[in-house]
Amino acid sequence: MCQLLGMNCNTPTDVRFSFTGFAQRGGVTGDHTDGWGIAFFEDKGLRHFVDHERAVDSPVAELIRRYPVKSRNVIAHIRKATQGVVSLENCHPFVRELWGRYWVFAHNGDLKDFRPRLHAHFQPVGSTDSEHAFCWIMQELSKSHAGVPTIDELTLTLRELAARIAPHGTFNFLLSNGLALWAHASTHLHYIERRHPFASARLSDEDLSLDFSTCTTPSDRVALIATAPLTCNEQWTAFESGQLKVFVDGVCR
Amino acid sequence: MCQLLGMNCNTPTDVRFSFTGFAQRGGVTGDHTDGWGIAFFEDKGLRHFVDHERAVDSPVAELIRRYPVKSRNVIAHIRKATQGVVSLENCHPFVRELWGRYWVFAHNGDLKDFRPRLHAHFQPVGSTDSEHAFCWIMQELSKSHAGVPTIDELTLTLRELAARIAPHGTFNFLLSNGLALWAHASTHLHYIERRHPFASARLSDEDLSLDFSTCTTPSDRVALIATAPLTCNEQWTAFESGQLKVFVDGVCR
Repeated sequence: MCQLLGMNCNTPTDVRFSFTGFAQRGGVTGDHTDGWGIAFFEDKGLRHFVDHERAVDSPVAELIRRYPVKSRNVIAHIRKATQGVVSLENCHPFVRELWGRYWVFAHNGDLKDFRPRLHAHFQPVGSTDSEHAFCWIMQELSKSHAGVPTIDELTLTLRELAARIAPHGTFNFLLSNGLALWAHASTHLHYIERRHPFASARLSDEDLSLDFSTCTTPSDRVALIATAPLTCNEQWTAFESGQLKVFVDGVCR
Repeated sequence: MCQLLGMNCNTPTDVRFSFTGFAQRGGVTGDHTDGWGIAFFEDKGLRHFVDHERAVDSPVAELIRRYPVKSRNVIAHIRKATQGVVSLENCHPFVRELWGRYWVFAHNGDLKDFRPRLHAHFQPVGSTDSEHAFCWIMQELSKSHAGVPTIDELTLTLRELAARIAPHGTFNFLLSNGLALWAHASTHLHYIERRHPFASARLSDEDLSLDFSTCTTPSDRVALIATAPLTCNEQWTAFESGQLKVFVDGVCR
């Protein structure tokens, strides 16, 4: 099974602590050895890193673990190939532009019989069911709204689209346009909202703790979404099957 | 002035030697200190790095200098902001998807009065004239061809489009879809084709030489395109104003 990690915050936040534990799942505590990727929004701009080496020993992952990129919206993915060969164009997250905004998508699951005809301007570059589903979502979003809709309108549309795809398999996904982060669960997805007073957290996948009270301000809000809880001493909330949640400014709405 | 670097080869080739000299222009031998970027095709897949720190001391540029990514098509850019603020979304190269292929574009020059209305599915994310021109090129390509055209057909269309944009300012650009690399000059652009027998080259911007005969095979073909010659002991060819050239498998056609 692939692994998903998302972060949504009200202030640019360093994701290295969470990514360090998450990257262990790409070859040490998990068998997800078919590539990985991460995308960081910086305002409207995007840093996008993909690699078909194992996250645990990829030089690019090592850069991410050391380099303090701060972002309000992050999506990361570690891949265990079920569909599509192991190659760079099949690594999540995928990126497209719509309405003058980048959109980032990562998927965990299988959609073996979901291959709708794509007649508009979003075509997959690789061969995964995931990128095909993402292109279909982009196509349907662009057909549903003439210009940039509000976050609430987008949430309504995405809820309808997710419900049409989900019956075709397992559809856990993360999607962000830099303003909000949407998360949908079929099977496994958990989230946590961190806020004042911040405490110490201990990673599940590596012997590492961080006292967030030393690197936050009282107004900071940070939401994390992951396939499985990343820390072992905090209370994560499991998504129910079929739930689509939207995170804005570090808060689940 | 911004700086452009392109590489097109018939076999995946390490660009680190050329990038090392090129990156010196982002803060040491040049005053191009407003960010940089590089994109490497790996088959249809793409690695895309952008940074608004100076190339000469950016941690991401340091990774590129150390990490042996091999690619057949590379486009790099160092930015001296003339239009648009210094921010990540304004860093070249820009990327869009068309016909199931990524397209990468970097521009050197100014197009102050070129703001055609964009009515199709390519909208700029940042505020540069360069990204606006790229979106217009993508729009016009998608209107001109129903499906993926041949490289020769694309060259004809691009020649027409470049001729319509060039009168609006200075339009030196590099464009690649992973199969070919197109280069257009208004003012400054040079290229070189390296082939057997390979010799030693010395960088213009740093005291570093490389004997290519030690790391090539007789069938290798490598073309490099740059704003100014990157080496001081090889014969580079200057583009004439208004020329658009296409490079395929390391050969200028």
